[in-house]
Formats: sequence, C-alpha cells, structure tokens
Amino acid sequence: MPVYTCTTVQSTLSAGVKAQLAAEVTRIHSMINHVPSTYVNVVFCELPQDAVFTDGQPAQPLLINGWVRTGHPEAQSSQLVAEVASAASRVTGIPAKRVLVVIQNSPAHLAIEGGRALPDPGEEEAWLREGAAEGSEVS
Amino acid sequence: MPVYTCTTVQSTLSAGVKAQLAAEVTRIHSMINHVPSTYVNVVFCELPQDAVFTDGQPAQPLLINGWVRTGHPEAQSSQLVAEVASAASRVTGIPAKRVLVVIQNSPAHLAIEGGRALPDPGEEEAWLREGAAEGSEVS
Amino acid sequence: MPVYTCTTVQSTLSAGVKAQLAAEVTRIHSMINHVPSTYVNVVFCELPQDAVFTDGQPAQPLLINGWVRTGHPEAQSSQLVAEVASAASRVTGIPAKRVLVVIQNSPAHLAIEGGRALPDPGEEEAWLREGAAEGSEVS
Repeated sequence: MPVYTCTTVQSTLSAGVKAQLAAEVTRIHSMINHVPSTYVNVVFCELPQDAVFTDGQPAQPLLINGWVRTGHPEAQSSQLVAEVASAASRVTGIPAKRVLVVIQNSPAHLAIEGGRALPDPGEEEAWLREGAAEGSEVS
Repeated sequence: MPVYTCTTVQSTLSAGVKAQLAAEVTRIHSMINHVPSTYVNVVFCELPQDAVFTDGQPAQPLLINGWVRTGHPEAQSSQLVAEVASAASRVTGIPAKRVLVVIQNSPAHLAIEGGRALPDPGEEEAWLREGAAEGSEVS
Repeated sequence: MPVYTCTTVQSTLSAGVKAQLAAEVTRIHSMINHVPSTYVNVVFCELPQDAVFTDGQPAQPLLINGWVRTGHPEAQSSQLVAEVASAASRVTGIPAKRVLVVIQNSPAHLAIEGGRALPDPGEEEAWLREGAAEGSEVS
C-alpha cells in the first residue's frame, strides 16, 4: 500500500545501505500502520550532483517522501514519521540535519492494488481475508 | 492539468509499451475527468534494479502516482483509479497484484498552467474559453 | 522544509539554468512563506525523451511539484505558485503554456527535519529558536 521515495545525489548510498534502509522502513511501517510488509514499497531516486539543491546551492540531503492512506490516528502517524527519520540517519550515517521526511496521504478509495481499492485504516484484516477468499494473490 | 508518474525498474517497459500506456491513461483521464487530452501529462521514472523494493526485497512493481485537482465527485475518482489500474495491467502485461495506482490531489488554485491558476472541477469550459479569448495557447 | 521537484526531458535545462532556477525558487519560497532559505530544497528529475508524454505524445513540458506544510493562508499560496510559475518561464525560456506548477501539502506534524517535527505555518520563529537552543544545526 504505501510507497516511500528516497531522493539523494548519486553514490550517496551504497547498494547495501539502500537494501538496509528499505528493510528498516518496511519493518517500521508494517509494525506501526498494521500493514503486511509485503505491501510496503521503497524506491530510491538517485540524481546527478548538479540536480539537487538546498538553499540554492548543490547539496546532499536525504529526502524521503512517503504516501499513506488518509485516516490513520494522528499519534500513530507522528510516531511513523519520527521512526522513519530516525532510521534514515541511523542506517545511512547522514546527520539528522540533512534528512527530511514528509508523509503525504490521500483517501484509501483513491488507490488500487491487486485490482481492488485499498481498505480504510482499521479495515485491513477484512480486506486481506476477502482477497484471500477471491484467490487473488495480492502480494 | 494532471500528471501521472509511472515508476518501474529499468527495462520493464519497452518504448512502445510506454507510449501505449501514456496514450491509454490520457484517454481515460480525459474521458472521465472532462479534461482535454492536451492537458494530460504522463512520465516514466525508470530506476536501477537495486533501487526498487517491495517487502524489503528487490522487486518489479508498477507504481503509478497521479495528481488531480481536488473536488471531482467521489464516484468519478473511484472510476478513474479503477480504469487506470486496469489499463496498466492490460497494456503492460504486469499482473494486477504488482500494480499500485494512487491518486493524490490538491486544490486547483494551487496549480498554474499556461500562466493561469487551474479551474475547479466543473469550471473547465469557462476556463478554456477565457484562455482562447486571451489568445494564450495553453496546449 | 519544502521540496520542489522539477521534471523535464534530459538536456532541456543546462547546469547553469538549473542552478538559476533553484536559486530563484528558493528566494521566492523563502520570501513568501517566511522560511529561511537554508530549508528550501529543489531537485531536478531529468528523464529520457521517450519517458515524457503530453496528450499521449512525446513532449517537453516543465513540471514542477512542490510540497509545503498545510496551513499557509490561501492568498499566500496563490502568490507562491504564481511567482514560481512565472520564474520558471523567465529563467528557463520555456513558454508558460508548457509549464505546470502544482503545490501539494500535508500537515507539518507529518514531516521531520533535523530530527524534529516541522512547525505549523506561523510558528517558524519559535521552532528555529528552540533548535538553536538545543544546539542542533538544522541547516
């Protein structure tokens, strides 16, 4: 269901660090938002040095943009963003001051996966059962 | 007005399939949301194999993120996302279980095209007439 | 705090033009939204020619997507998007009819920078003072 897009300058993150960050974001999201880890997507958008600016100057931030379904409790979302930001620094070694994590959302019915509109937060179990009953492998 | 961003691993989609998917998404969006097809943008973000993860593992999903103006009727938006998701599998051959389509939105007045703020949903015709009268080619 | 993502076909913008556009967007955002320029990120996503479509045809638009915190006054946001769009044409020479600027937003508490949740619009000064007091360099 969710998609996290991590934007950096090329060669900032090794293949190993990308895999580790993807695993950690997946674990955190799955745990906090009650979504099977099989539904968590993490992608890395690695740009040339002359394509990333902070303060109008070439820079090396780590920008993480996550999309989640609208309707998760506010405290849960605050915990989610805090843990993702903390993991980002811990895994990559990039200091917190250069890490920006933003969560955006839209209503679950505006997203389709495995051919079905996503469930509202809290309705995941019924949705997963229904998918299994239909024999659709929504992995 | 809208922008659809399709993210995949490199070499997942041939040039021909990309063109076909762009054409199909454009047709569907134009028809359902009453926007001239000249205003529909579709871009492909194709990433290295080690930059795309599902469940913390390298994976080959098709992630489509669309931006539309806030205020379209809910049933219309549900139809839009369903038809885009269906077209994505049909055109690319990627099974539905690996296709995620997400629609996000923001208010029309927070977007500018052809030098003018976009019209709210339902106000497109007046907006287009006004643009033609000004002689601005907002193609 | 904000992130602006500029999407074009490769080789549309020279390195110099990218730097100039990043500087101009940074200046405008900082001035209108009362955010120190050190917090403004601008990235360029430059795609192959066969990956960008308008009206289902290969095209060369300039698509700018900005993320800001929810809660800025409406008139301020309208001015922001207008000035960014105007600067985009002025700096790049791309006619307004091929420039689309979209601002999206989510609540400040869904974003973390320098290890701290972002302040709501209007609360920037207290947030910056608090950061300075903690000795965190949130540049």
